[in-house]
Amino acid sequence: MSLEIPYTTGLTPDGKAVTGQVDFSRVPRFAGPGTFAGLPSLAEVGEAQAGVIGIPFDSGVTFRPGARFGPEGIRGASHLIRPYNVELDSFPFAKHQVADVGNLAVTPFGIDRAVEAMLTGLAAARERAGKLVILGGDHTIAYPALKTLARHHGPISVLHFDAHIDTFGPYFGAAMHHGTPFRRAAEEGLLDPEGCMHVGIRGPLYGPHDLSDDRAVGFQTVHSSEFATTGLPGILEQILTRLGDRPVYVSVDIDVLDPAFAPGTGTPEPGGLASRELLYLLRGLAPLNLVGADVVEVAPAYDHADVTSLAAAHIAYEFLSLWGR
Amino acid sequence: MSLEIPYTTGLTPDGKAVTGQVDFSRVPRFAGPGTFAGLPSLAEVGEAQAGVIGIPFDSGVTFRPGARFGPEGIRGASHLIRPYNVELDSFPFAKHQVADVGNLAVTPFGIDRAVEAMLTGLAAARERAGKLVILGGDHTIAYPALKTLARHHGPISVLHFDAHIDTFGPYFGAAMHHGTPFRRAAEEGLLDPEGCMHVGIRGPLYGPHDLSDDRAVGFQTVHSSEFATTGLPGILEQILTRLGDRPVYVSVDIDVLDPAFAPGTGTPEPGGLASRELLYLLRGLAPLNLVGADVVEVAPAYDHADVTSLAAAHIAYEFLSLWGR
Amino acid sequence: MSLEIPYTTGLTPDGKAVTGQVDFSRVPRFAGPGTFAGLPSLAEVGEAQAGVIGIPFDSGVTFRPGARFGPEGIRGASHLIRPYNVELDSFPFAKHQVADVGNLAVTPFGIDRAVEAMLTGLAAARERAGKLVILGGDHTIAYPALKTLARHHGPISVLHFDAHIDTFGPYFGAAMHHGTPFRRAAEEGLLDPEGCMHVGIRGPLYGPHDLSDDRAVGFQTVHSSEFATTGLPGILEQILTRLGDRPVYVSVDIDVLDPAFAPGTGTPEPGGLASRELLYLLRGLAPLNLVGADVVEVAPAYDHADVTSLAAAHIAYEFLSLWGR
Amino acid sequence: MSLEIPYTTGLTPDGKAVTGQVDFSRVPRFAGPGTFAGLPSLAEVGEAQAGVIGIPFDSGVTFRPGARFGPEGIRGASHLIRPYNVELDSFPFAKHQVADVGNLAVTPFGIDRAVEAMLTGLAAARERAGKLVILGGDHTIAYPALKTLARHHGPISVLHFDAHIDTFGPYFGAAMHHGTPFRRAAEEGLLDPEGCMHVGIRGPLYGPHDLSDDRAVGFQTVHSSEFATTGLPGILEQILTRLGDRPVYVSVDIDVLDPAFAPGTGTPEPGGLASRELLYLLRGLAPLNLVGADVVEVAPAYDHADVTSLAAAHIAYEFLSLWGR
Amino acid sequence: MSLEIPYTTGLTPDGKAVTGQVDFSRVPRFAGPGTFAGLPSLAEVGEAQAGVIGIPFDSGVTFRPGARFGPEGIRGASHLIRPYNVELDSFPFAKHQVADVGNLAVTPFGIDRAVEAMLTGLAAARERAGKLVILGGDHTIAYPALKTLARHHGPISVLHFDAHIDTFGPYFGAAMHHGTPFRRAAEEGLLDPEGCMHVGIRGPLYGPHDLSDDRAVGFQTVHSSEFATTGLPGILEQILTRLGDRPVYVSVDIDVLDPAFAPGTGTPEPGGLASRELLYLLRGLAPLNLVGADVVEVAPAYDHADVTSLAAAHIAYEFLSLWGR
Amino acid sequence: MSLEIPYTTGLTPDGKAVTGQVDFSRVPRFAGPGTFAGLPSLAEVGEAQAGVIGIPFDSGVTFRPGARFGPEGIRGASHLIRPYNVELDSFPFAKHQVADVGNLAVTPFGIDRAVEAMLTGLAAARERAGKLVILGGDHTIAYPALKTLARHHGPISVLHFDAHIDTFGPYFGAAMHHGTPFRRAAEEGLLDPEGCMHVGIRGPLYGPHDLSDDRAVGFQTVHSSEFATTGLPGILEQILTRLGDRPVYVSVDIDVLDPAFAPGTGTPEPGGLASRELLYLLRGLAPLNLVGADVVEVAPAYDHADVTSLAAAHIAYEFLSLWGR
Repeated sequence: MSLEIPYTTGLTPDGKAVTGQVDFSRVPRFAGPGTFAGLPSLAEVGEAQAGVIGIPFDSGVTFRPGARFGPEGIRGASHLIRPYNVELDSFPFAKHQVADVGNLAVTPFGIDRAVEAMLTGLAAARERAGKLVILGGDHTIAYPALKTLARHHGPISVLHFDAHIDTFGPYFGAAMHHGTPFRRAAEEGLLDPEGCMHVGIRGPLYGPHDLSDDRAVGFQTVHSSEFATTGLPGILEQILTRLGDRPVYVSVDIDVLDPAFAPGTGTPEPGGLASRELLYLLRGLAPLNLVGADVVEVAPAYDHADVTSLAAAHIAYEFLSLWGR
Repeated sequence: MSLEIPYTTGLTPDGKAVTGQVDFSRVPRFAGPGTFAGLPSLAEVGEAQAGVIGIPFDSGVTFRPGARFGPEGIRGASHLIRPYNVELDSFPFAKHQVADVGNLAVTPFGIDRAVEAMLTGLAAARERAGKLVILGGDHTIAYPALKTLARHHGPISVLHFDAHIDTFGPYFGAAMHHGTPFRRAAEEGLLDPEGCMHVGIRGPLYGPHDLSDDRAVGFQTVHSSEFATTGLPGILEQILTRLGDRPVYVSVDIDVLDPAFAPGTGTPEPGGLASRELLYLLRGLAPLNLVGADVVEVAPAYDHADVTSLAAAHIAYEFLSLWGR
Repeated sequence: MSLEIPYTTGLTPDGKAVTGQVDFSRVPRFAGPGTFAGLPSLAEVGEAQAGVIGIPFDSGVTFRPGARFGPEGIRGASHLIRPYNVELDSFPFAKHQVADVGNLAVTPFGIDRAVEAMLTGLAAARERAGKLVILGGDHTIAYPALKTLARHHGPISVLHFDAHIDTFGPYFGAAMHHGTPFRRAAEEGLLDPEGCMHVGIRGPLYGPHDLSDDRAVGFQTVHSSEFATTGLPGILEQILTRLGDRPVYVSVDIDVLDPAFAPGTGTPEPGGLASRELLYLLRGLAPLNLVGADVVEVAPAYDHADVTSLAAAHIAYEFLSLWGR
Repeated sequence: MSLEIPYTTGLTPDGKAVTGQVDFSRVPRFAGPGTFAGLPSLAEVGEAQAGVIGIPFDSGVTFRPGARFGPEGIRGASHLIRPYNVELDSFPFAKHQVADVGNLAVTPFGIDRAVEAMLTGLAAARERAGKLVILGGDHTIAYPALKTLARHHGPISVLHFDAHIDTFGPYFGAAMHHGTPFRRAAEEGLLDPEGCMHVGIRGPLYGPHDLSDDRAVGFQTVHSSEFATTGLPGILEQILTRLGDRPVYVSVDIDVLDPAFAPGTGTPEPGGLASRELLYLLRGLAPLNLVGADVVEVAPAYDHADVTSLAAAHIAYEFLSLWGR
Repeated sequence: MSLEIPYTTGLTPDGKAVTGQVDFSRVPRFAGPGTFAGLPSLAEVGEAQAGVIGIPFDSGVTFRPGARFGPEGIRGASHLIRPYNVELDSFPFAKHQVADVGNLAVTPFGIDRAVEAMLTGLAAARERAGKLVILGGDHTIAYPALKTLARHHGPISVLHFDAHIDTFGPYFGAAMHHGTPFRRAAEEGLLDPEGCMHVGIRGPLYGPHDLSDDRAVGFQTVHSSEFATTGLPGILEQILTRLGDRPVYVSVDIDVLDPAFAPGTGTPEPGGLASRELLYLLRGLAPLNLVGADVVEVAPAYDHADVTSLAAAHIAYEFLSLWGR
Repeated sequence: MSLEIPYTTGLTPDGKAVTGQVDFSRVPRFAGPGTFAGLPSLAEVGEAQAGVIGIPFDSGVTFRPGARFGPEGIRGASHLIRPYNVELDSFPFAKHQVADVGNLAVTPFGIDRAVEAMLTGLAAARERAGKLVILGGDHTIAYPALKTLARHHGPISVLHFDAHIDTFGPYFGAAMHHGTPFRRAAEEGLLDPEGCMHVGIRGPLYGPHDLSDDRAVGFQTVHSSEFATTGLPGILEQILTRLGDRPVYVSVDIDVLDPAFAPGTGTPEPGGLASRELLYLLRGLAPLNLVGADVVEVAPAYDHADVTSLAAAHIAYEFLSLWGR
């Protein structure tokens, strides 16, 4: 027995060698490295075309904190992932090199300084690891993610799965927090006002102006309640129509799921989506031009038996699979 | 910084001043008073047109106890509630004064004495706080609630969301317990036999006679299994047709939800409703003449991450919103 | 007060005396014997026509262990079961004698020796207790169950509810483990290759060959994702058509349910069935020739408020009810 | 493999055959029958010289309910018990026949009726099973236990381990509840006023009169705080001196342990005993004339990883071991 | 039944009327108001001589967040408190008026702004409610507490129970955080360098300089390991000698307790105190001139069965009792 | 911001460069790599003089499984560790290079094959990483650990902290399991019969022969009950006398701690040690010739708030600190 980690290896469709997941025929799933899905770290492979990166930051939250432990929770729940995505007929880890980029280390004291560090870190990660799935952390991280992408792609279409609109204004004097990233992004011209969409919105607001402000920023909305009467194919159709062939960033606040499916989060809201519904919609995004994605607001201290982290890990896997087709 | 609680204030449509929720722009949601949704207490506003009242009583239960901590749990999970109900286009706390009436203190020893105290307490509360949403406690509390309402409205139509019919007979020699309130109410003429309905019933019974007894009392039933094949609009239509314009009391035993959505309860039963389904139906009750409501059987010791209490808090909010349109 | 357990008694349709559940009008549901649903033990009634038997074995698992405590968990969650199954119009404990057979005691060290002991034990149990519902334990137990049944019925049609296909090959040098029972059964000719079916399959695989291997073994598949777009009646129709009038064994891996409904299991997979969907399908199996059944992979250490065990207990009850019509 | 439970057998010192625990060399500890320590049920052995009996009753509690599930919890945590008590050099299950008597089924509605049923049941159990260790249920059960014993032994010395004195008066009009059994027993002359003792008392009271009332009833007290400065041998000495050779009933409210050691209870009080301290004292009781014992107030819904139930099971085992020397 | 809360009333030793706890003979302990120990709110009594105040702030933490829910957790666990402290022979709520001051609402975004608000709020509270016990929140709150007290008393002696010294320097560029309040206080001359003491310190540091820096600030230290060999009376003696008759502030970081006794905290450290040890020392502080106190770092999301909150509530009660003698 | 992990660096006393923990002034403790204490992996440093290695194997357990997740749990709870051990005045990560060796991947199916793989893996690890602290996994792992060490050092003195003696014989036909490693080691001459010692033993046995067998193997015993009357210095003295200057292996079964301190384990036993007691004894081992160590039987599924894993991480740190003096 060697002490080396026995990764699987493969060839991409165009014949380049890639390092895949740890070989689970030799390493039990509970014994492998702590990386996402047992993938190699970026340090081990040097560079990659797609990566998973954690941002353990939750100083932007307004209710239950704890999403700083989200990346650790999601990675820990990712070890049942296998290399072939049946629904998408995709081998995401063989199409090109995928790596776990690790975590960005940012200060917990001071949102603005933290956002600065995220901008630097995400730019460096994009350079070396290609397209990124970000594991939050709270929703604040969507702002630097969008800013980084907009530098390359211009205004971005955001497809935003969440219970909350997250286009609220400043709160307790803070211009940036987890309820405002999309407003801030819009104000800075980072969003394509013709191509943004919320899915799963529910719960009370301060008033109808929240909704009109939100529309002004560029978002159409599929409320969670619409799932009670509109079939999934119809909702998917709305999404695809809205987003077209623009560069798309998909942001999944795990609280888009009902608290039954995602108890481990900071601002849970009854009446949400089932995980099967969310996965259906994500897999349906294959026609889009996905340039980046995140899954945020996983707070393991409130989770049970890892159900929230398991859902988040699977969501991240779907993003990688969309890129792996 | 003052030590006073900074409540919001407003004007009702007819120009009266009302005190609303604590101002969450000045008090973080985790820092506010322990009242339901941060509303003022009845003592602070003197009187109200609608109120939330807890009855921490669970000596009527036959399996897992603990609903005595239900009011505490539900209030604790109500701090994410905002003032505008999007689905109902309602500002429930600005239509008229709403208050948290506090808890009725009743003996845990002796169901009959406890019910007497509830009758006195509910009458007093109704006098000062108007229409009431009761936070249970176990389902026993529906009997004094109906008795109090019937004095003013005559026989009441009950719309009852529950896994269980709760028209069982005496148990262990007790004429009153959490499985019998509607039978007792019917026997005393408190119910309108043409207008009662169960929704969500499931699970095994003692025999077909349970169902025929139940029909004799005046209940039609939508079984939980019907949700598998009947769409929500059809079920809502049945409900509205059955209840018409009678005075209606809506009683929600939280176990009408599947244990996935409401683990924190005393007699959980698989195969239940999703929270989104229940909220759809509650919001559809706008045409009815709602005279009272309850949400009962929340047992926080069995809850996880407050998911059950969160659902119950939201249910109570929907009732207040129906009155706030 | 006597110290004897006051069981109910009854007569079967053809006039034989049977011992039913403990009399819950005299014994509170939390006070009864620890047997499944308060049924008599096999020792108490001597023989039976249907039985529930536990196999507390989990040495075949590949990820989270703990299903060895499954039988204890499921029995503990079965005390809310009443004698009349409304949906199936069935009195399962009065149609014939039903008993709790107890647990098979098998070694935790050595899968092959354990399987041998299961074969002996199941044969003995079948002799004395008739048709059996097995409470797992991990999915390994399906192999000896099928082998026992095939001796009497010839090749068996398997209706398999699971997130995973469980027709994988050897793992870490073990020819038998919880991911392979149906492959092994097929290789030994125990399965009817024209009549097997998976329902609820989801999650990533090693490659498309997993699916083709699986079809070669004789399985058709209804993926969990199909529930998003196909109605339950259509899925039931597919099942009934496939299985026809063959001898059928129904095997329910509790992870066919979404982790929200069944957190207490070893290899949870998001995107699964709701308990209401599963119960709908199980009740629809009335036309089939059900010769045996199991519910496996309940791991109570990961459960919360018994929600997983409650679902499993209910599933077992549905099987008994199918036999009790 | 037979379906019979393979109990061990032995001979008492005077040559009678006894049935012992299930043979754990043939039945894994997680696979055995649900009886206390895998002992035979009273039904299986007919009669016994010592027994364990559950009283799943908690309608006498004033705060957190749930001790009705205490017997189930304690039995479930008793399967690691082996036949030889090292500290006491005792084979408790070979000295004479020991059996699990099962549970007394009493109404949850009405304390007085429940106490009547306990009196009848305990008398019957004493007749057939000899000396009893009672598994509560709440502390109410100590009153019928003492009444039953006093009929045979005259006034009883009570050695009472608890955070609370439990000689409070009526509460909410109830003459009997879990805070008053020893006062009631004293008032009826069931206690020896020269020989009662509390150990572990702590926490606030209503006033000094609680303590003087308590002394009037016949109790000396070792406060929990005394353990900080008095060694265990000194405390044991005080106990032995006080109790002498009188007939002694030992009552252990599990909340005598610190909440760290016993979180699963109804009225936890910081500053309590460690389990090692309690076991030391119990083992030191060998010189006493122990005529009965209980361990009460285990509320599994508040337990974690069974630590409270494990402690309680061990306490019950010490009592059986004292009788088995 | 009235809807008013039935508080007890009494007379102070010098004949003034005071309002005490809610009357628990009329209100079950689980039914009362949510205030600390069922005491009246400051709004209800207008002013007080001693008060309990919450500061739900945790933006200064460096590991597990969640102490923002500490005040809610501690109040919820305070309802078993009775009016007479046996060990101190004290009626803390009858010596003078005691009130629950509620929570200070401070921003979660920006430690410095939050500290400013705390300074204002504590000054106002001190004015109206007298001596204060602060319920944290994280340890940051000790800095404004000391600053407020030093304005009135001059340099303060701090008796600090904690696993950590909390005289670390800036962290991630933040001059104020939960590991530094005592260093900052010392730098501003708020501490008496001859009279400060840590008790319970343990766990690794960055180097010996941490300890010498700490001594320079004015702290003597009783390490947790010393409890293994030094008796409690000796440790108490050291404390009393060090603090003498100076104005003393006692700060209890709940992590001074071992994680077994206080799992619900942010930076748990094995090898700590038992709750009985801590209570012994606190009760021994009667000779001191206690001018203020806190109990901080209770993080309910990590608690179980409220054991941490129960300990904290009891600690706060001891402080009130010291003032109530 | 670079994507590299910023490790600290240092010089050993003899001037060699070493890589230490990640720099926690730049990486928040919740953001670092998943290695033990944020140490570099063996791959990163190439070789080391001391290492931490996980063996995620639990197929040798006889009751609650789950220790396969022990290494993951312990590493996750090790991030509060700092570089200076105050009690031992030791900088363990600067004395020489310390590394996290990762996990040994062994089959869960077949104890004998797993033990073979452990032997190979431990030999390789010893070669490259020097002295090892093993993170279990169940206690089976002590056997290959001892075998590996005996090859180099000859017969080993074992200092064994455990509730159980672990010198039991075969079980269910398995010659190797978690209750027998020291008997097997003794039978093969791996142990020094003059120098072995158990500490913390408690709980029932099969009979006195268990103890005499154990003595024959070479163990002296300090029972947990002795801690009630013997001071810690006296117990430490016994240990040091027994072990002298022989090569010593210290094996800590976490269940030596009371379940209050270590609920997350497989065979918990009330009446155990406090974590402070265990740490005192471990720190007292400085005079010994420690050649290897383990901490085993941590089962995170039964843990709460990581208290068990925190204790285990600290224990491992003490071992490293003993080597770092």
